[in-house]
Amino acid sequence: MIKVSEYFDGRVKSLGQELAGQRFTVGIIEPGEYTFGTQTLEIMEIIYGEMDVVHPDGRHASYRKGQSFQVPRDTKFTVIAKQPVTYLCLYQ
Amino acid sequence: MIKVSEYFDGRVKSLGQELAGQRFTVGIIEPGEYTFGTQTLEIMEIIYGEMDVVHPDGRHASYRKGQSFQVPRDTKFTVIAKQPVTYLCLYQ
Repeated sequence: MIKVSEYFDGRVKSLGQELAGQRFTVGIIEPGEYTFGTQTLEIMEIIYGEMDVVHPDGRHASYRKGQSFQVPRDTKFTVIAKQPVTYLCLYQ
Repeated sequence: MIKVSEYFDGRVKSLGQELAGQRFTVGIIEPGEYTFGTQTLEIMEIIYGEMDVVHPDGRHASYRKGQSFQVPRDTKFTVIAKQPVTYLCLYQ
């Protein structure tokens, strides 16, 4: 079943499923700044648009369509979106 | 606003938004066979997984992550998914 989730008053929405045992979500983030906590290692790939990220170690980076980054488990990272940005997230 | 849509009894779900005037959806298709009608030229990109497609002209093709195809407006195409498949669709 495809699971629909909403966060931050609906400014972030995602669809979740599994493919060959790999849990994943695909989602859209509205313009704004959002801090997410991880429960697993997360591999985030930018599907459409771009985002700035503050990594758990304080490092800032920008990512655009086709680029990806990892976030360790049990940490927090912040996404800053100037325009709507679409992502794919794999939970490891 | 991020628009959540469901089709085929929830076996296809999508999130819709606009980026710089470009309408798009990102969605997940559960295993099965589905025929979609187009109202505009659609550019479909496979985000995760793979799908078989029967194009409006009857041509069959398979597409996997990173590949894309176009479907003309006012036509129908059929998606055959053996596993959940995630797509990005741009409406032109």
